[in-house]
Amino acid sequence: MPLEIPEVVIDRLPVYFRTLTRIADEGRTVISSQELGEELDVTPAQIRKDLSYFGRFGKQGRGYSVQRLLGELKDILGLDRRWRVVVVGIGRLGRAVASYPGFEGQGFDIVARYDANPEVIGTNVDGDLVRDVATLESDLRENHAEIGIVTVTASQAQDVVNVLTRGGVRAILNYTPTGIQVPPTVEIKHINPVLFLQSMTYHLKRRIDERDALRG
Amino acid sequence: MPLEIPEVVIDRLPVYFRTLTRIADEGRTVISSQELGEELDVTPAQIRKDLSYFGRFGKQGRGYSVQRLLGELKDILGLDRRWRVVVVGIGRLGRAVASYPGFEGQGFDIVARYDANPEVIGTNVDGDLVRDVATLESDLRENHAEIGIVTVTASQAQDVVNVLTRGGVRAILNYTPTGIQVPPTVEIKHINPVLFLQSMTYHLKRRIDERDALRG
Repeated sequence: MPLEIPEVVIDRLPVYFRTLTRIADEGRTVISSQELGEELDVTPAQIRKDLSYFGRFGKQGRGYSVQRLLGELKDILGLDRRWRVVVVGIGRLGRAVASYPGFEGQGFDIVARYDANPEVIGTNVDGDLVRDVATLESDLRENHAEIGIVTVTASQAQDVVNVLTRGGVRAILNYTPTGIQVPPTVEIKHINPVLFLQSMTYHLKRRIDERDALRG
Repeated sequence: MPLEIPEVVIDRLPVYFRTLTRIADEGRTVISSQELGEELDVTPAQIRKDLSYFGRFGKQGRGYSVQRLLGELKDILGLDRRWRVVVVGIGRLGRAVASYPGFEGQGFDIVARYDANPEVIGTNVDGDLVRDVATLESDLRENHAEIGIVTVTASQAQDVVNVLTRGGVRAILNYTPTGIQVPPTVEIKHINPVLFLQSMTYHLKRRIDERDALRG
C-alpha cells in the first residue's frame, strides 16, 4: 500500500462505502466501475483510480464483488470496530448533532455529552445526563474516547480542543465557525455551512456571468 | 482564466478568504505565500499553485497585497453580492442551522423557513414565521431564492429538492444522510457528520495499526 493517499480520495471512500452498502441491501453482488460511477456521479476512470490506491479489487471486465469491496473499505476506514465519541456543547446545535440517527449504526458510540451551562448540566438528553465540561479531562482518562465533536461557541472552541487532545482524543469534528490549532497527531475536520455555500456560489456566479455575457 | 479548476481548489478558496479577512482585520497589508501557508497549514507551493488558477496575484519575492487578494477572491467566489437562501425543515437541526450567526455577515440572507408540521408552521423562529412547505414552489417564483438548505428527514429530502430545483434554486446544502439526485445545472454539497468521522477513522486506524506493529 502506498504511504500517501491524497486526502481528497480518502474523503470519497465513505461515500463509496455508503453507496455500496445500499447496493448490497438491494441484493446485488457484482458491480462495474461504470455502474458504480453512475450511482456516484463520477467517471468510471476516477473510481478505478481511487480504488487502485488500495490494491487490486476488480478483475478486468468482470466488475467488483460488492461484498469484497465493502469488506476492504470497512477495513481501510476502520469501520470494523467501534469508536468512542464525546460531544462538547449541548446547545441547540449540539443536541441536534448528538441525536443524529446515523452514528450508532456506523460504529460511533456517543459515550458522554458535556456543557458549561449550569442549567444544562445534569439534564437528560437522549437518555444520558449532560456532564460538567470541567470533568472532561479526568473523564477522558477513564472513558478513553478517541473522537470529539465540538459544538461550543467559537470563543470556547480552542480551549475545549486543547482539553480533548490532552485527554487523548485523536480526531475532532469542529462545528464552530473558527480555525482551530491541533497537534500533527490529531485529525480535524470542520463543518461550517458558510464555507460550503461559498464554494457553491463560485459556480453560481460563473453561470450568471456566462448568461449575462450571452445576453450581451 | 482556465475553464476547469479542480473542485478541491474551489473548496479551499473560502478558507483562504476567511483567513485573509482575519489578517486584514489585524491591520496587515502584505502577506507572503510562506506566511499564508503557515496560517492555513498548507505548503507555500500549494498556495501559489491554487492562486495561479486565477491569474497573477503576487510579485516574485514581494508577497501578496491582502486587500487585492481579498477583492479578487470576493469577485471569484461571488461574495460581492447577496444571495437569497431558503431553509426547508425547521426541526432541531433546521433551527440550529438557520440561526447560525455567520450567514448574514457573509452575504447570505435567509428569506424564508419552511416546515410540513402543522404545529411548526406559523411559529416564530428568529423573528420570521415558519411557512407551509406546500407553498414553497409558488413562493420561489416570487422570492427568487438561489440557494436551499435542506434539513428535513432523509425520506422527504428528494421530494423537497425536486421542488427547490423546479422553483429555480441552483445550489443545495443537504444536511440529510442520503444521496440526492440533482440536474447538472444545480450544485449540491452534503453535510453528513458520519462521512466526516469515517474519513478521520481511516487515519486513526492506520496509526493504531502502526503502533501495534511497532509493539510486535
